[in-house]
Parts: sequence; C-alpha cells; structure tokens
Amino acid sequence: MKKILLTTALLAATAGAASAEITLSGSGRFGLAYTDSAAPGFSSTVLSYRLRVNVNAKFEADNGVTYGGRIRFQNSNGQATSPFSPAMLYVEASGVRVEVGNANTAYDSVALMYNSEVGFLSRSHGDPQGSYYGFNSGPYGSGEANRVGIYAAYSVSGVNLKASLIQADQSVSGGDDEMSIAADYQAAQFTVAAAYAQNGGGIADNDLTFVGVAYKFGDAGSVGLNYNDNGTIGGLEVGKTTTLYGTYSINGIGLIAYVTDSNVAAADTAYGLGASYDLGGATLAGGIESGFAGEMRADLGVNMSF
Amino acid sequence: MKKILLTTALLAATAGAASAEITLSGSGRFGLAYTDSAAPGFSSTVLSYRLRVNVNAKFEADNGVTYGGRIRFQNSNGQATSPFSPAMLYVEASGVRVEVGNANTAYDSVALMYNSEVGFLSRSHGDPQGSYYGFNSGPYGSGEANRVGIYAAYSVSGVNLKASLIQADQSVSGGDDEMSIAADYQAAQFTVAAAYAQNGGGIADNDLTFVGVAYKFGDAGSVGLNYNDNGTIGGLEVGKTTTLYGTYSINGIGLIAYVTDSNVAAADTAYGLGASYDLGGATLAGGIESGFAGEMRADLGVNMSF
Amino acid sequence: MKKILLTTALLAATAGAASAEITLSGSGRFGLAYTDSAAPGFSSTVLSYRLRVNVNAKFEADNGVTYGGRIRFQNSNGQATSPFSPAMLYVEASGVRVEVGNANTAYDSVALMYNSEVGFLSRSHGDPQGSYYGFNSGPYGSGEANRVGIYAAYSVSGVNLKASLIQADQSVSGGDDEMSIAADYQAAQFTVAAAYAQNGGGIADNDLTFVGVAYKFGDAGSVGLNYNDNGTIGGLEVGKTTTLYGTYSINGIGLIAYVTDSNVAAADTAYGLGASYDLGGATLAGGIESGFAGEMRADLGVNMSF
Repeated sequence: MKKILLTTALLAATAGAASAEITLSGSGRFGLAYTDSAAPGFSSTVLSYRLRVNVNAKFEADNGVTYGGRIRFQNSNGQATSPFSPAMLYVEASGVRVEVGNANTAYDSVALMYNSEVGFLSRSHGDPQGSYYGFNSGPYGSGEANRVGIYAAYSVSGVNLKASLIQADQSVSGGDDEMSIAADYQAAQFTVAAAYAQNGGGIADNDLTFVGVAYKFGDAGSVGLNYNDNGTIGGLEVGKTTTLYGTYSINGIGLIAYVTDSNVAAADTAYGLGASYDLGGATLAGGIESGFAGEMRADLGVNMSF
Repeated sequence: MKKILLTTALLAATAGAASAEITLSGSGRFGLAYTDSAAPGFSSTVLSYRLRVNVNAKFEADNGVTYGGRIRFQNSNGQATSPFSPAMLYVEASGVRVEVGNANTAYDSVALMYNSEVGFLSRSHGDPQGSYYGFNSGPYGSGEANRVGIYAAYSVSGVNLKASLIQADQSVSGGDDEMSIAADYQAAQFTVAAAYAQNGGGIADNDLTFVGVAYKFGDAGSVGLNYNDNGTIGGLEVGKTTTLYGTYSINGIGLIAYVTDSNVAAADTAYGLGASYDLGGATLAGGIESGFAGEMRADLGVNMSF
Repeated sequence: MKKILLTTALLAATAGAASAEITLSGSGRFGLAYTDSAAPGFSSTVLSYRLRVNVNAKFEADNGVTYGGRIRFQNSNGQATSPFSPAMLYVEASGVRVEVGNANTAYDSVALMYNSEVGFLSRSHGDPQGSYYGFNSGPYGSGEANRVGIYAAYSVSGVNLKASLIQADQSVSGGDDEMSIAADYQAAQFTVAAAYAQNGGGIADNDLTFVGVAYKFGDAGSVGLNYNDNGTIGGLEVGKTTTLYGTYSINGIGLIAYVTDSNVAAADTAYGLGASYDLGGATLAGGIESGFAGEMRADLGVNMSF
C-alpha cells in the first residue's frame, strides 16, 4: 500500500484526518478541421489535436474546508510556446468557493452560454464574440503578468450565483477592472441563466450581457435560446446575436443544430449541425457550420477525457 | 482508498467499467562525460545529467479500444529553454496503434537500429547519422510549429510493421513530407529488421535505408550487423556505415563492443566498448569509444527508470 | 487495484521487490501584501499568490539504495516566464545523500538560518542578504545554463553535515566555484548551527558566514540568535547582521517576533512580528515588519502544503 501516489494522503485518510494530494486530470482531442476560406496556398484541411493536463492540488481540512490550487499545461497543434497557465488558488466551505489568481470569471462560467457548440472542436457561431476574461489556459502575455482575479461562487437550492473581479494590472493604481456577475437557476424542465460584465477584458466601457433559457423535453431532447450583447470595443459595437438551438439523442447518437442571427449589417444568418457518437467513453464528434459571411467550416474527430 | 490518484479511475475499475487515468513515468541519468577533443579553454570532462518525465493520459473503453495521449518534459544539463514536447494522441485496438500529432516515426522506431549503443549516455558511432524525424522530446522550433505526423503500427505473429508520414508544415500546400516504413521479425534466435525513409527530416531527396540482423546465442550473448545509408543533404551523401556488434553477460556484468566502418573518404574505423552493472534496478554503465576521426570519448554514470 | 498511479510500482511492492514511482508534492499560498514604500502610481497592496509543484522521481533498490530526481514547476503572481526548474538527481544510502545537477547547497540548507521569518510570505529582515546558490526554483538564466552542482549530506547521532560545490560554468576551465559547508547539532533543548561559503554565488572573494543558536523552553516557546556575515560584492561589504528571535504558542496561535541589527552605517534596527493560526492543516499567517530604512511591510494570507 505504500506505493500509492501520496503516502501522506493515504496515511491521513487511514487516520480519518485531513488529507492533501496533487492529482492530474485532463482531456484530449484529435481530428480533421476543414474550412472553405483558406487563403491561397494554405491548406483547407488540417489535422487538429490537443492534449490538456490539469494539475490539481487539494487539501481537505478536518473542519470541512477545502483549500487547493490549479495549474494547467496543454499543447495544441504543436505550438512552440510555453504551455503553462498561471496558478489559481481557492478555498471552499459551506457551498461557497472563492478563487484568486488566474481565477475563473462569472461571465465565462455562466450556464447555457456555450450550449450550441458542435463538433469535436466545440465551436459555434452562437458563442459570445466579445472580449472578456476567463481562466487563462496558457501563460499571460508579456503585458499581462500583473493581472489578478478574484471569483466567488455560491450554490443553494438549484440557484448558482457567481461574481468576479479581474484587475488587468494590480501593480498600478486605477485601470479598467472587469467586474462580472452571473446567475442561473434550474427548476424541473427549465433552466434560465443571465450574466453581465463591465469593462469586459479590461477594456473601458466594454459591457457585455448574456441571457439564456433552455427547456428539456423527456430524456432525449432539449431546445434553448441564447442572447448575447457582445459589447463595444474602440467605440464600435461588436454586435448582438440571438441563437436558437436544439439537441436530440437517438440510438446512442447525439444530434445538435443551431441557427444564430446577428444585428450586424449585412451579416448572414449562421447555422450549424453536429453529431456525436459514444465510443464507449471517448466520443466521436463532427460538425458542419455556415458563418455570418456564408463561409463554411467542418470538423470530425475524437474527444476523450482523463 | 479514496486517496488513490484518480478516484474516477478507481471507481470505474471497481465497477469493471471503462477507466481513465493520467500517470507519470520517466527516466534519469547522471555521470561524467569525457572527450579528448574539447576546444582550448573548454572542459574535457563534464557532469552530464537528465531527468525525463512522460505524462501519459489513457482511456480504456469497454469495447477494448484504448485512447490516450502523451506530453513529455525533461531537463538536460540545466538547459534554460522550455522543456515541453508537443502532444501526441493515439488510438489502439486489435493490435493496431495509430498516433497523431508529435507522433513516433517508423524509421526511428525500427528494431535493432540503436543496439550498438554503449555507456550511460547511450551513444554509438554506429547509430544513424542522417536527418530524420522521431518523437520530439523538446518543443518544436519556431519554424516547426505546424509540423504534424501520423504513425501506424501493427503487430502479428512476431512481425512488427510500422508506417509514418510527417508533414513539415501542414498549414500550407505542398512541401516535402517525410514518409517512412519499417518492419522487423523475430524467429527463434534470429531478428531481422529493415526501414526506409523518403525525404527524411522533410529534406527533399534525403532518402535513408536501414537493414539489421541479430543472432542470440544462449541466454548470455548476441551478435548483430547493422547497415545504414544515411541519405543525402544538399546534394552531398552523408555516408554509409556498416556496424558489427556483440553483447555478453557474465556475473551480472553486461559487456558490449562494436566496430563500425564508414564509406566516407578518409574516415577511420570507429569502435566502442561498454560495460554495465545492475545496481538492484538502477544500472551503472560506462563506455569508451573512438570515432571516425580517431577522437576519443568516454562516459561513466547511472541510469534509472521510474 | 490496477488503477493506482504506477502499476509497476504496485506490482513491485506486492512482490517485495525494488520499486519506482513518480509522485507530485507541493505547496500553495495566497493573501495580501502591503508596503508603505510603493513608488508613486504603484499599488501599496497587492494580492500575492503562488502554486508550487515538485515532480519527485524515486527508485528504491533492493539493496537499500535510493535513486531519484526532482524537477519543480511553479507560478508566482501570474509570471509569464517558463516555470520549470533544472533537474536534480540524487543517490541515498546508509545515511549519505549525494545530489547532482540543480543541487541543494550546504549554505542554503543549514538549520536555523531562516527561523526568524514571519507571515504567509515567509520573510524576515534577519534572513541572509548576500549572494549564494541554492536549489533553483525557476529556470537558469541564459548565462547560467552550464551551472552544475554537487551536494553531499550525512547525518549521524543528531549531527547533520553538509558540503556542496557549484560550478558557475562547467563547460570552461577555471572560474570561481562556490564551495560551502554546513553543520548543525541538536542536543536536548539546544540547537547550534554554522555554515561557511567561499565565492558565494560564483562571485570571487564573496565569502559568507552564518552562526546560529536556539534554545527551546518547554513545548511552547523558543529563543534564537543568528549571525550573518553577508560577504563582499564588488569590493564592498554587504554587511553583518545579528538577529534575536523568539516564538511562543498559545491556544493554537503561534507568535513570532524578531529584532535584527546591521553594522551598515545609518541602518535602523529592523524588527518584525508574526502570528499564525492552524486552520485544520492549512495555516493562516500574517506578519508586520519594519526594515533597515524604517520602511514598513505587512502580509496576511494562507499557506497550504500538498
């Protein structure tokens, strides 16, 4: 028994005492990605792959409080740059979770927002298009090293409340901090969610809004409607999108379809179709989408999680 | 029992269901490396060390298919650059293994090719000298970020067949892709192996060939003969080498010797002698070699694996 | 049972044979750090955080010898640079430990030297101020890649003896290598420790000396006295400091106070106060200090270890 990963953790567990451990989790994906809009001389189809590993440090105190931290490293498509995220640390107790450092954000964590994604690359033209912070998977850029965030989440009776504050540069006074809040609620077949971000991505007056509703019918299907006001960058509106999507499962095959409309002048209606099949744990997934300029993209590949 | 590395993996195992895990494995080595050809003012003997860690993600589906991925990080002699490899992902089923991304290559994986290596640094003048791809232990260089490979291996009745294709830059059309194939076969005392690479290392018309045979007598000894055509770079032949080697074990000591002949004009016959001793799992190993220009190098150190 | 981190390790353990494993350990901290001396326009209070992970490779041979290695990665305050340390490898047998590569040093490892530290950031004006090597948590700088160290430690009957040699650049002949030795001894209530480094940090004629004594009264308190000669850089003495400190525990609260005196002209007497509280394994710690120029700094945060 002495060869188990963290001997201290095991001994602690045996004694019923506090326990500490560092574990690894992650995900992988690979497949083909196609676009009909490659520049001349560039490939229209590429092999896309990513391996992501989360390093999860956790300490469970006897009094029920959990402390921990996370660093992520990943490699996407052979990228040559350092694959390490900045660190996040957290405390959890009595349903409240507080994160500091490379924290999650309320806006990026709201329910339903990414529900229209299709394919093994998890993409959708109905995803938010604006600028806002989230947990940073790679290293901060050279001008971002002093970014710091605080995030708090509280769950009670099916209601999830989240708030976050990200300082773009905590070493200096002032600056345009991103503040965001989010709430979602599930009751029977219905889920509703909303989020708001001020100074999204640390850009002054870039305020974003999300509202989503979803309805689940039976075990097999669902429909949802997402609205995104994607904020304002450099005095120009990024645009507002409304996305309708539906999912259906039949014989182990999952189907998903969405259509999204933008208020940007001359934007086409974008839409996408996706299918997925459970390979006994890993998932084969493909998608085909038409964008706001009528451009087509498609993917087919495998998702796995560890 | 809850403190074992991946609780999800354990629960899955208990239920006899699919399981996912990320584990670490690796190797270490340290010792002294000597050369009689150090430039004036440079050290002839240095302390050489390396610690290598493989991050192995694996998912075993109920249907017998295994999905996974690998990232490697290592540090050699205090190098200051980022130590992370690009990611490789794979699928295994029914004796077939397919890798994508930072894939292994058929040419680099063929049996017997590195069998004449000596010392704790695992070097031999009989190793191939040409340019060809393999699994990349460090990050891709700045001009290599779009390299991508596919590798397939199949084993049946003692025959191992391998094929790989590496695109130097998959983002653009054309380019000189490396294609390689390899086969080896073991029957009773004999092993035979052969490999061929076209456009080795993504260099046009750099074609490499390897042929090796080995014979094992009793439990204690073996002899082998390796032939390398090391290809053509910039219109110049790298050279062809023929290497004869033998190994013998006695009283826990392993001995190895090789002699290699090159067709390059004025090249001396190179040779090497090595010895290793099992320290109860770790191995003490040393080697002394004379190169094609008569230069001498030697090493003595410890190898360990984790 | 097959899902435990290193199957090979487990099988080995079951058979009572040699075992190899790679485990993760580490520490985390976060909290607020205040200074009254921030430059105009810069923040006086920042959120400080760090997550540190040690990758520990270990091989225990049947004959009682242990081989292993360590790489560390960490992220402090979102730093954008690569977080990987160079590798260290070691062998342990019969109470002797030898490290090579990114080795610890005798001077940095001596007992008592850092005992006056306060707060969750573990700082003290009584810490040594000179230049000397230690285990390098981050990557070597561009001019340091050929640094290499050897460290040896031996423990017997309460006496710990350590010696280390660090070559600033082993690729060239000559250079100012740092040599250091340390010894400490514990007997009943008393601990005494001393260390000496020649050419500290690879700087010629930068010789440092440390002497410390400590006395423990009962279970709750201790007092100690540390003396540091911080060496000479560029012909100028860094200074000598004498530090008196005391600790006391009461009702789960740990208190610590120090006062330190420097022989540098016009230097104020520096002092600090710290308190810590066990949160069931994690520790809440805070400190407030006044420096040699009368500047004030304070911190309050959480320390955890994994």
